[in-house]
Amino acid sequence: MSRAVIAGRMLDAPAPGKTDLEEAALLIDQSGTIIERAGRGTPQFDMLLRSPDVRKLDARSLLIPGLVDLHIHAPQWPQIGTALDLPLERWLGEYTFPLEARYEDIAFAEAVYDDLVPALLAQGTTTALYFTTIHEDASLALARSCLKYGQRGFVGLVAMDNAALCPETYRHASPEAAIDATRRFIEAVRKLPGNETGLVQPVITPRFIPACSDALLRGLGELARETGVRVQTHASESDWEHECVRTRFGCTDVEALDTFGLLRQHTVLAHAGFTNADDRERIRKRQSAIAHCPISNAFFAGAVLPVRHLIDEGTACGLGTDISGGYSPSIFENARQAVIAARMLTSGVNPDTAPGKRGSPGLEIDFAEAFWLATRGGAEALGVPTGLLRPGMKLDALELRMDIGMSFPEGPDCAANAVQKIVCHAGLHSVTRVWVDGKIVDVHGRGKQP
Amino acid sequence: MSRAVIAGRMLDAPAPGKTDLEEAALLIDQSGTIIERAGRGTPQFDMLLRSPDVRKLDARSLLIPGLVDLHIHAPQWPQIGTALDLPLERWLGEYTFPLEARYEDIAFAEAVYDDLVPALLAQGTTTALYFTTIHEDASLALARSCLKYGQRGFVGLVAMDNAALCPETYRHASPEAAIDATRRFIEAVRKLPGNETGLVQPVITPRFIPACSDALLRGLGELARETGVRVQTHASESDWEHECVRTRFGCTDVEALDTFGLLRQHTVLAHAGFTNADDRERIRKRQSAIAHCPISNAFFAGAVLPVRHLIDEGTACGLGTDISGGYSPSIFENARQAVIAARMLTSGVNPDTAPGKRGSPGLEIDFAEAFWLATRGGAEALGVPTGLLRPGMKLDALELRMDIGMSFPEGPDCAANAVQKIVCHAGLHSVTRVWVDGKIVDVHGRGKQP
Repeated sequence: MSRAVIAGRMLDAPAPGKTDLEEAALLIDQSGTIIERAGRGTPQFDMLLRSPDVRKLDARSLLIPGLVDLHIHAPQWPQIGTALDLPLERWLGEYTFPLEARYEDIAFAEAVYDDLVPALLAQGTTTALYFTTIHEDASLALARSCLKYGQRGFVGLVAMDNAALCPETYRHASPEAAIDATRRFIEAVRKLPGNETGLVQPVITPRFIPACSDALLRGLGELARETGVRVQTHASESDWEHECVRTRFGCTDVEALDTFGLLRQHTVLAHAGFTNADDRERIRKRQSAIAHCPISNAFFAGAVLPVRHLIDEGTACGLGTDISGGYSPSIFENARQAVIAARMLTSGVNPDTAPGKRGSPGLEIDFAEAFWLATRGGAEALGVPTGLLRPGMKLDALELRMDIGMSFPEGPDCAANAVQKIVCHAGLHSVTRVWVDGKIVDVHGRGKQP
Repeated sequence: MSRAVIAGRMLDAPAPGKTDLEEAALLIDQSGTIIERAGRGTPQFDMLLRSPDVRKLDARSLLIPGLVDLHIHAPQWPQIGTALDLPLERWLGEYTFPLEARYEDIAFAEAVYDDLVPALLAQGTTTALYFTTIHEDASLALARSCLKYGQRGFVGLVAMDNAALCPETYRHASPEAAIDATRRFIEAVRKLPGNETGLVQPVITPRFIPACSDALLRGLGELARETGVRVQTHASESDWEHECVRTRFGCTDVEALDTFGLLRQHTVLAHAGFTNADDRERIRKRQSAIAHCPISNAFFAGAVLPVRHLIDEGTACGLGTDISGGYSPSIFENARQAVIAARMLTSGVNPDTAPGKRGSPGLEIDFAEAFWLATRGGAEALGVPTGLLRPGMKLDALELRMDIGMSFPEGPDCAANAVQKIVCHAGLHSVTRVWVDGKIVDVHGRGKQP
């Protein structure tokens, strides 16, 4: 790949609530890194526009950073939008665990993952942090699908060994078996042909504390320290789960994970709605992060994570679809829901309660903050140099065609209005081109023209 | 138009929570009425399939009833997805009233409405109940756009005369002026060329009680009785609005509207989140209905309408986008949000509140109920013979192509699973063909192939 130039309107969010909309040109080097950015009106802009490799966006389109999905269960893709009316324990026992157990069948796994990865790219998800299953071969198949379609993938072989909670047919036989499997998986992903640049990374993935023995949690913490590999797990998702950990360890999920050495730089905790201020301080201290999954939380959490506090405190946070606990593969739709959920937390929900007692004032987030969560927030959580259209970043980006509501905002408030329009209206229909690591990715068969 | 046959899988919801998925054929007569339905395996099905005019859906598509938007402000289309971070009074004063005042310019109105109507049809909205502005010519332009693109439109010239609330440049000069304008508008819509079948109907539309004088409310009630024309207004939307009416009349919005003769058969009340059980009983007694607008309510209502009660009691209800108080033109997206909002009302939102005190148990609605609200519920609210794919109904329908999550549900639970998948995932990208009143409508330029 030679050097390339992209020119047109571009919008990114350097910080929560701060958005920047400018007509500019980006120069991308052979490694997919943005090495120069020049705004319209500068001599450098005019020079870049004369490049033979320039790609100019049309007047109704704009470039934004690619979306980061910080929490997604890849094997649950076949049942997305199914059985959400069930309570969690039936949803797990009747649908989710039996489906995940099927990934012993490598052909099944390959078919699902080869459908999922391009489907997510078509939605604009350039980076995904995946849970897979306990099956090493199937999990490697997901890593290969990421490489094949060019998605930045963080792939976690699930570790779970607690016989009290996990089905006999779907769990690791012992802590050692799970730790050994994780170690083999880390090595296998690192050695995958085509993964020389490290586009796909392994992740240490205890499913959640209730599904894991102490020995497994301790062993995975040691493995993380030894290998430097990132960690992900669920934490403080629901009243039941939170209480389960409190009963077992006499502390919160976050404290327990820290004790086991699992709270590390770029550890991503899914949900975390029932964390308290001390937990969040600990998360910041360890440079860990939270994956906010607002659609899933409406079905399985029973409360809303106060993202406002996270942003104000500087606790790292991004968005997750939580497929299939969440029904939508779209981070845009989750960004909208993050704004709505925060509004509902602020105003309260019960019309029979007096207005002054109904809600928790001051916990709104705005559309620009949701956009930051969807892009740069997720990238910072994972520690990848993406999420901004700035020199030094890898080019993970989307070309969006905005065609809802007639006009694209112009004038003094146009960056704020544009980001709101994007969060409100963007989706599968508006993502017209996708770049990961500087390359246009192939999402054909999904109605895209790469 | 001659008789036509459509064959393929079809799904509709005869009652809240009851869905039916079947491979069948529909025979449509020249007036657009379904005159026969035959399920696969019957001799009649085979006979209909041999018709020269048969249109067979492909294996990944299915037919569902068209969507009904029970509450939408057509003139606010240019600002959809804008300024939702503002409080209601600034949103009205700085954005909405100035925008609506621009519809004195008929060319502006025509351009907006000619963009809006096909955009809604492309989203699957075959019937819409519109608020326009106080401008008669511009409001007629919307009626003409509905006829031009073939949408079933209920168009309400807005009446508002209260100098204390409405800007001087954007209100009727007197109650009489508003009543006379409404009377002229009713006659003009009924006489519109091309409206011989009554596809587009006028609606008496006091904006909401605070914007109207007593004389105006009384006069519009009399006009409704005299002409038999439907009524729409906002009711009990927010704490402020609800208290405003209580202070002025010493009663609820619903009681006041009833006193003025505005609570009639097929009167549609937008929002109504702060109605009580007595209000709802009165709504049922008058055969009126509620337009639930869950996305808008997250921004401007400050509470969630308990739709569970409405369904259980038999209070008529459908869904509204409330553009641009709601950011989405999609009734599918509002149906999803109706499920989520009811979940959040049930579970509560504040993680710091004890689980037993957090929510209002038992107020969930399921996806099949949301589908019913989006289709048959809206049609029943308006009293139009649509919303089901059954003999005697007019054919208002969508061909959906379901391509999220790999597989379309099969097996014993397939109707329940299919309706959930549709509510979760359908959108602009999945609506491949639209019929209104038995005719395929033209939504070209929106990526459709009519």
